[in-house]
Amino acid sequence: MVKKLSDWPELPQAQCGSAELSEEQSPARGYSPHHVSQALLTDLYELTMMQAYFERAMEDEAVFSLFVRRLPQHRNYLVAAGLDDVLRFLETLRFDQAAIAYLERLGLFSDRFLRYLARLTFAGDVYAVPEGSVVFGNEPLVEIVAPMPQAQLIETAVMNQIVLQTVLASKAARVVAAAKGRSVVDFGMRRMHGFEASLKAARAFYIAGVDSTSNVAAGQLYGIPVAGTMAHSYIQAHDDELAAFRNFARVYPDTMLLVDTYDTLAGVRKVVQLARELGAEFKVRAVRLDSGNLGTLACESRRILDAAGLHSVGIFASGGLNEDVIRQLVESGAPITGFGVGTDLGVSRDAPSLDIAYKLVAYGGQDRVKLSPEKLVLPGRKQVWRVEEDGRAVEDVIAKATEDLPGRPLLFPVMKGGRRLIEGPTDLGTARNRTRDEIARLPDRIRGLDPAIPPYPVGLSRDLQGARDEIYARLRQERV
Amino acid sequence: MVKKLSDWPELPQAQCGSAELSEEQSPARGYSPHHVSQALLTDLYELTMMQAYFERAMEDEAVFSLFVRRLPQHRNYLVAAGLDDVLRFLETLRFDQAAIAYLERLGLFSDRFLRYLARLTFAGDVYAVPEGSVVFGNEPLVEIVAPMPQAQLIETAVMNQIVLQTVLASKAARVVAAAKGRSVVDFGMRRMHGFEASLKAARAFYIAGVDSTSNVAAGQLYGIPVAGTMAHSYIQAHDDELAAFRNFARVYPDTMLLVDTYDTLAGVRKVVQLARELGAEFKVRAVRLDSGNLGTLACESRRILDAAGLHSVGIFASGGLNEDVIRQLVESGAPITGFGVGTDLGVSRDAPSLDIAYKLVAYGGQDRVKLSPEKLVLPGRKQVWRVEEDGRAVEDVIAKATEDLPGRPLLFPVMKGGRRLIEGPTDLGTARNRTRDEIARLPDRIRGLDPAIPPYPVGLSRDLQGARDEIYARLRQERV
Repeated sequence: MVKKLSDWPELPQAQCGSAELSEEQSPARGYSPHHVSQALLTDLYELTMMQAYFERAMEDEAVFSLFVRRLPQHRNYLVAAGLDDVLRFLETLRFDQAAIAYLERLGLFSDRFLRYLARLTFAGDVYAVPEGSVVFGNEPLVEIVAPMPQAQLIETAVMNQIVLQTVLASKAARVVAAAKGRSVVDFGMRRMHGFEASLKAARAFYIAGVDSTSNVAAGQLYGIPVAGTMAHSYIQAHDDELAAFRNFARVYPDTMLLVDTYDTLAGVRKVVQLARELGAEFKVRAVRLDSGNLGTLACESRRILDAAGLHSVGIFASGGLNEDVIRQLVESGAPITGFGVGTDLGVSRDAPSLDIAYKLVAYGGQDRVKLSPEKLVLPGRKQVWRVEEDGRAVEDVIAKATEDLPGRPLLFPVMKGGRRLIEGPTDLGTARNRTRDEIARLPDRIRGLDPAIPPYPVGLSRDLQGARDEIYARLRQERV
Repeated sequence: MVKKLSDWPELPQAQCGSAELSEEQSPARGYSPHHVSQALLTDLYELTMMQAYFERAMEDEAVFSLFVRRLPQHRNYLVAAGLDDVLRFLETLRFDQAAIAYLERLGLFSDRFLRYLARLTFAGDVYAVPEGSVVFGNEPLVEIVAPMPQAQLIETAVMNQIVLQTVLASKAARVVAAAKGRSVVDFGMRRMHGFEASLKAARAFYIAGVDSTSNVAAGQLYGIPVAGTMAHSYIQAHDDELAAFRNFARVYPDTMLLVDTYDTLAGVRKVVQLARELGAEFKVRAVRLDSGNLGTLACESRRILDAAGLHSVGIFASGGLNEDVIRQLVESGAPITGFGVGTDLGVSRDAPSLDIAYKLVAYGGQDRVKLSPEKLVLPGRKQVWRVEEDGRAVEDVIAKATEDLPGRPLLFPVMKGGRRLIEGPTDLGTARNRTRDEIARLPDRIRGLDPAIPPYPVGLSRDLQGARDEIYARLRQERV
């Protein structure tokens, strides 16, 4: 019943007109993982298209627009993030020798084209909403203006980096909203999609209002506050739970103690016992509940602590949390002072990716769009204007980039001719304040956790509507 | 209505007994991203626990078991992957100078402890199922035997790397099963969680039976076949669709042409036109449909191609695919020869993470478990035995490592004293064959896409049951 290798269908690249590796490089022969060339962080079709453009000298200026078509069901808005990594990628984009050697082995590319790649750098312009901005469906987060081959090459990497942090920042904003001012700590690293994801997630979470992360490398890399105390294994490694608490509090007097390894309330009583032992030396800040009915256990723990006069010992909750559970706990009045949130936040479980698109909207000075009935694309370079009244956002209007409309513009030039217009990385404090301020200015139904009815209004300027209608009419006519 | 920075609650680490960065390092002051130290890819509590162990010289041997508690709703089995990256991480684990300097700044760690970290390497043993193995709930994928502080330090990284590739390989196995021998290409990079995720995903997909990837860097790094042709933007950059096809086929005669930029069937007719123009020179392998009703469009495209005598031109489908859509298409008899699968596969949308655990099961030669009614942990070092009859798996039995039971064992020693027992990386061809063979030997209901009733039987050996009952009885008694 076992299918043999030889029974399996031909490899797909034969059908797809793509490259097949020679026998010597095939994984079945023990290919050695080695170097990753930055410029190869792309889809193969970007490179095959590039060569086709190159062959016909189609290097005119192209405009690509990156936007999210539809928001996921439980997102009333998105928090844009990831731009800094995009700009760093573009600044340093090079085909190194290993990249050229690999592409040569694929047998798809001419020597002339490979020599061209070896000299290539990104020399385009980038317009973008600053990190931490609140955005909605169809609004451009990034627009790239560059010679067609360059703008095409970078598509995959730009989308990959924007989607990662925007997905996670947008989820985090909901968790932060549910916690209503209580602290939120990122505990997600262990169940995220790799190390890079865990680092950039911690950054995106911080922008979105999460207070700290358990991820030490994210603290090192971004200067984000780090948090964490003990695991069940620490308790288990001792013969006695109280002894474990005693030892840990000796090293970290103002720590938080994990009380649910064996029996949560018995654990809380041991914290009380420790407080009696230590007297004035007792400085434990909180107990942590990590399983069971967190609402009930928090109330009972509070009662036990208060009865012992330990009013200043907080209650921190973790274990299976997301914005819905946190909202329930907060609304039920559970005396919880902070939340550690892991998996659901770490992979944005209910919406782990976005319907994000990177679409050609102009080429050689002419508006261009794809004609697909269910997927409208807005032609040309654009701007988004946010109209606010009495400090509250009331409407966004997507317009042609050349228009000047009421409200404030969301997109700014951030790179010119391949060079950043602002030195150095995004300031995370600034981005975090931006998110906080922009969310504070949203209508209540949009800031809330329930699907907003109606959704936030996003309109098109008259000029953009005109340009869109014109190009669609022309395309439809050409098809007739 | 805008909340000011000063209105916001105190940062949580004050409550959690964790580190706070000094003003100079706070992100609000423009912290510069720089170096990531490998050993800091961990949760802060691993380090705080390590110091507490260090202070009391608790360096006895610990055994930790990594397993998935419950499979996600739509997974009848998992495909284990990611071990190679775990072993590379462990082999090279070091606290570099930057790591020590960062930890010093946190103000949580003694100089003596930091000197100890600076000398630390991983010297433990690792037992694991080989990559590509089929596993079930509660079965250990990895067991670590090492001095407690080392075994604790690596928890987060080991889980992070195993979860990433196991989630993705397990999803991919379903997509491959649905395609019933038709080719499957990974198109997911642009919507995945970062570059690292996209590379390791391509690797995990290849193990699980996906035929190729659009991710060029994954081709470079792992030698996986790469695939891809053109995007809508290439068509749009031309004034005329036929001209775009003509130009592309000139560079890549055996290519696949994307036909849905304006009107799918009109696009197919232009391929026919190109075939007439080129005569014997026409070598296009396939058309690609990327939107609309793929089943209907595939049938109509097939008719148009066949009517023109283009029987050898295949039909490749992409756009919003997952195992359910593919199954429907295949079962409806749609004449599709290959599938490009993106977002749903790329983030394993229906189950983007796993209920994965890394639990202390022994310390200092004694079995240890956490006592939590809903979360049983199996004590001590273990082995899993797969019982097969007539080439079909009928039952797995989790046993103590020292037992010798009928069937074949799934776990093998892969690292001894911090050194790999097998030189070099996992051979991907071998892992891929393993997955294919192990899936082929599963009962039909388990290999199928519907939730299996009953699930695959996983039992405990009598000795392991005894050990578990004994330790739980002891723990419960101690709590009374």
